[in-house]
Amino acid sequence: MLIELKPHVDRFAFIRRLERMGLQAVAQGEQRISVVRGMEEGVMPELFAALPEVESVRPLKEKFKLASIAAAKKTVIEVRGKTIGGNELFVIAGPCSIESREQMEVCAQAAQKHGAGGLRGGAFKPRTSPYEFQGMGEEGLKILKEMGEKYDLATVSEVMDASQIDLVASYVDILQVGARNMHNFTLLKELGRIKNPILLKRGFAATYQDLLLAAEYIISAGNPNVILCERGIRTFETHTRNTLDLNLVPALKELTHLPIIVDPSHGTGRRSMVLPMARAAVAAGADGIAIEMHPNPDRALTDAAQTIGFASFEKMMKEINLIHKCLSEV
Amino acid sequence: MLIELKPHVDRFAFIRRLERMGLQAVAQGEQRISVVRGMEEGVMPELFAALPEVESVRPLKEKFKLASIAAAKKTVIEVRGKTIGGNELFVIAGPCSIESREQMEVCAQAAQKHGAGGLRGGAFKPRTSPYEFQGMGEEGLKILKEMGEKYDLATVSEVMDASQIDLVASYVDILQVGARNMHNFTLLKELGRIKNPILLKRGFAATYQDLLLAAEYIISAGNPNVILCERGIRTFETHTRNTLDLNLVPALKELTHLPIIVDPSHGTGRRSMVLPMARAAVAAGADGIAIEMHPNPDRALTDAAQTIGFASFEKMMKEINLIHKCLSEV
Amino acid sequence: MLIELKPHVDRFAFIRRLERMGLQAVAQGEQRISVVRGMEEGVMPELFAALPEVESVRPLKEKFKLASIAAAKKTVIEVRGKTIGGNELFVIAGPCSIESREQMEVCAQAAQKHGAGGLRGGAFKPRTSPYEFQGMGEEGLKILKEMGEKYDLATVSEVMDASQIDLVASYVDILQVGARNMHNFTLLKELGRIKNPILLKRGFAATYQDLLLAAEYIISAGNPNVILCERGIRTFETHTRNTLDLNLVPALKELTHLPIIVDPSHGTGRRSMVLPMARAAVAAGADGIAIEMHPNPDRALTDAAQTIGFASFEKMMKEINLIHKCLSEV
Amino acid sequence: MLIELKPHVDRFAFIRRLERMGLQAVAQGEQRISVVRGMEEGVMPELFAALPEVESVRPLKEKFKLASIAAAKKTVIEVRGKTIGGNELFVIAGPCSIESREQMEVCAQAAQKHGAGGLRGGAFKPRTSPYEFQGMGEEGLKILKEMGEKYDLATVSEVMDASQIDLVASYVDILQVGARNMHNFTLLKELGRIKNPILLKRGFAATYQDLLLAAEYIISAGNPNVILCERGIRTFETHTRNTLDLNLVPALKELTHLPIIVDPSHGTGRRSMVLPMARAAVAAGADGIAIEMHPNPDRALTDAAQTIGFASFEKMMKEINLIHKCLSEV
Repeated sequence: MLIELKPHVDRFAFIRRLERMGLQAVAQGEQRISVVRGMEEGVMPELFAALPEVESVRPLKEKFKLASIAAAKKTVIEVRGKTIGGNELFVIAGPCSIESREQMEVCAQAAQKHGAGGLRGGAFKPRTSPYEFQGMGEEGLKILKEMGEKYDLATVSEVMDASQIDLVASYVDILQVGARNMHNFTLLKELGRIKNPILLKRGFAATYQDLLLAAEYIISAGNPNVILCERGIRTFETHTRNTLDLNLVPALKELTHLPIIVDPSHGTGRRSMVLPMARAAVAAGADGIAIEMHPNPDRALTDAAQTIGFASFEKMMKEINLIHKCLSEV
Repeated sequence: MLIELKPHVDRFAFIRRLERMGLQAVAQGEQRISVVRGMEEGVMPELFAALPEVESVRPLKEKFKLASIAAAKKTVIEVRGKTIGGNELFVIAGPCSIESREQMEVCAQAAQKHGAGGLRGGAFKPRTSPYEFQGMGEEGLKILKEMGEKYDLATVSEVMDASQIDLVASYVDILQVGARNMHNFTLLKELGRIKNPILLKRGFAATYQDLLLAAEYIISAGNPNVILCERGIRTFETHTRNTLDLNLVPALKELTHLPIIVDPSHGTGRRSMVLPMARAAVAAGADGIAIEMHPNPDRALTDAAQTIGFASFEKMMKEINLIHKCLSEV
Repeated sequence: MLIELKPHVDRFAFIRRLERMGLQAVAQGEQRISVVRGMEEGVMPELFAALPEVESVRPLKEKFKLASIAAAKKTVIEVRGKTIGGNELFVIAGPCSIESREQMEVCAQAAQKHGAGGLRGGAFKPRTSPYEFQGMGEEGLKILKEMGEKYDLATVSEVMDASQIDLVASYVDILQVGARNMHNFTLLKELGRIKNPILLKRGFAATYQDLLLAAEYIISAGNPNVILCERGIRTFETHTRNTLDLNLVPALKELTHLPIIVDPSHGTGRRSMVLPMARAAVAAGADGIAIEMHPNPDRALTDAAQTIGFASFEKMMKEINLIHKCLSEV
Repeated sequence: MLIELKPHVDRFAFIRRLERMGLQAVAQGEQRISVVRGMEEGVMPELFAALPEVESVRPLKEKFKLASIAAAKKTVIEVRGKTIGGNELFVIAGPCSIESREQMEVCAQAAQKHGAGGLRGGAFKPRTSPYEFQGMGEEGLKILKEMGEKYDLATVSEVMDASQIDLVASYVDILQVGARNMHNFTLLKELGRIKNPILLKRGFAATYQDLLLAAEYIISAGNPNVILCERGIRTFETHTRNTLDLNLVPALKELTHLPIIVDPSHGTGRRSMVLPMARAAVAAGADGIAIEMHPNPDRALTDAAQTIGFASFEKMMKEINLIHKCLSEV
């Protein structure tokens, strides 16, 4: 249930009244309150509509309450002066794994030069096999932070476990939840404690509703700054590593107010497909793109097959900006 | 094996020589021959390279020989003065089912007015249930032919069985093979007998290789005019009717010389998603779009939920033409 | 709608009366009639219940009417003195492709010796590539017929197109519709004209409902003798060729009265998995098993990797009969 | 690489020598060592075969080294006097969620009476929505422990995060990793620190190799007591909640020495399908079954639709024991 309050009503006092009735409610914007728990006990919305403080009452039918498009206006997140979910495209670029200071510096230069807003790099790597490179750890985060500041880029890195949140958040602007952790509910709840934006990647067999409910875990725990990310699902097709599902973009635009970013690198697993699918994502309405980029893609320690070089990155930026501009003029 | 002949060599005489050796070969262009059968018997390509008529010899590693990008230059198909697979976008629009002369006339007008090249309409409908509307049959084909001629549009309609080919081909320019028939090998072989372009829809659990091998059936039987069509696959996601797989577009551009068209109506099953996914398809590099359009979409006898009206169609044409133009200028 | 008639009412006269009202009805058993078409026009079942000839009326909610468990008692099909769908297991064994008289004779001997009821062998082969072995054709069917008669086995072979039905039916007891043709509606309807049992294989992306509606096409066209066959679906798993979906067995036992057979050869694509999955199928309640068997499995022209030899076949028969017997005693 | 040592060689001293060479090795059994890391640097197995302490050397080709069937004999795990992976079936029964002492007591009685070896019950529940019942927590674990001791049943409960391991392990015999956490690598590594058996559920889009690599995380971190559990994957089929993939059982029997348990409750999501699929799992060769059981299934707080009652449980135990016995006699 969404309660629109009359002007000048103290929404926090109103929430406390609801809590005394056994309901859990969250403030959304100046005059709006979402009741997210307790409604199943047979509470009648008509009663609330009759209260003098209340302007109007609407039902929230979806299982995801706070992530629902009914619950809020379009979420626009600001990091380092750029916006995510607003009118500009937000591009996150960088290597899969942070390997060295030199590697990150040239990536950051390229990212800045061609107009990316974010710099990515994995320090803790979730690897399917325990015998594969697991990342540089905190040392990598330090390098990422330094380059983010030097080149004025929002930094993005993955957090693999609730116990790492404070460490990663002390270095990084945007914390990424990997596809394999999208259903790690302990991690999601703990990310509700911080205020950093969360880049939440879709699990590779998660439905749209699953993804929105994962976002709901973070938001209902206190952090509304969630960015959704499509990165490919598992299907019977074996030509590509995953099947990038761009249908998610227009589908979620109807269901949620959260920004949506697309990762064509993991989504396809093939370097030659990154540019066309980045273009397609922007044409479908995505708020941004996350890609894997490396000064020497063939030598990347991880994900080499899907990593692009700087020349391709420059070309991609031109193409997607052109499409974005041309759609904004229609 | 691809054999490049020297200038002025009689390629048909050369093919007959190959046939006497137990090989099956097909002429491709002026000087090129593909040997598609018989190679498995241990024929050594070096021997052919030594012949005086032969310029060079190349292997054809893929299971699909004639559909392979190695086998030919980009296929450009001409119908009614428009090209498919060339520099222009080819848009096919029309209702799922032909319902009446009036319905087809207003569709044809809208298609022509906004720049579509093709008019579609089903006369024989493959329906999952035997109790659903099965189409108007030949009566519908007559209407389609009339409107195609009156508005100078290439007509497209489905052929469900080998026994219908001659009937459908006598009325229609482009014969469609539906997704459910992509593996109907008898039908595919028989379509090799005619010269009409074939719009071959991807089966909803067909891999890219399966689709190319289905095309190979048609081409190897004598008809090189195959247009591939992505229309969504079956995955675990239930929000959309199917999962439109745009990855196919750039993937197939690397594997085949055949034109590729995308059908966002069946691919998503949702009217509101048709436009964004049409834009995305063009941005990914598709040669055209096939959509379901109806003067009164909610009253369409079949596929109402995914059918758009004329105003949306006009908007779609503007958007995809803009994207197509802007990409051709990069 | 299911109409139960009173004793001694002439059901065919009654059906003709229904037809004059614009309804299509099918007789099922002595006193029962299914109305399968025309109900959508707002016909009220109560009116029929009030007729003097009518004992009772029940709704048929599923889209599949005649295949529905509500429509009939368990279908038991008799071929050459064996039953399918009754109390005994019905096992179909034989090579993927008929290759020679000698091959078929030893297969038939082994099948008979170890208690199989059916002998399979492909004469017309649906192959993904046009360059692969396409079968022996009519010559193969003659061999199959001879061996079926000599060893008193019900013969099973695939029909790929409506135009082949009469030819195949003139040699073979049970006509198989392959997975790739499950949605070939023209073929399905034409199979309704004959009386031979039809072994209908599940398409590799067909839902349970899709399969039952395919059966409905055959039954509503006049042939009630349909045997359903699970043979694996397409999933993301690549270790096996397909994912044999045994859940279908208990699920369909609740939805339909038709017999259900499982094919663990295609279902897994791996010889070593055929026996355990055959056992599992019988334990799940399957009415029979269809397997690929060859005197020299490694030399089979088609499907070698999933074909078992005679010793394994003997072992399988022992195991599944043991399980079948032990379950019938619970 | 697997190194078989000669008798009386000190394997731990040998492992230390390997470590000085930059290799990581793990002892397996009395005379066997697996080298799991460092081989990629070009180490030549022949050199090791020449050492005086070494009997023989074998390659370990799979990415999963310690979980590989080449690495060890069949793993048999003992808990409370019962074995998992040996000659007896190990059945785990109990409610999805622990709800009360009374509920757990009647479940434990029924489990013991009909021959189950394990008692399950969730105390920390991973729920897709944050607004659903999240479990009784530690209070539930106390009840579970009490009932396990009173009725001599091995207790099984889920651990959702690395931070919960010590708490859960202090009450519970077997710690379960849920399907949604199969790729939570931090959790997997930390489970390597303890000695309790781990019931590792397959992620719903995890391949067989993914599952074995998840097991490898636990084993390589020090805990060899891993039990694999199939619980259904996501496919296009919507009739069942998941698609129970019994092919996993024979497939993994060829790839790993670890015990395999099947969960037909989550695998199908339908009460009526639990018994047939439990029978099928045992017929396919599973080492055990895990099912959801409740004194009043319709009133279960979670997973009611797939939970069976005591009478069905008794029937299931009879049926699967009969099949297990009959197969052991073949």
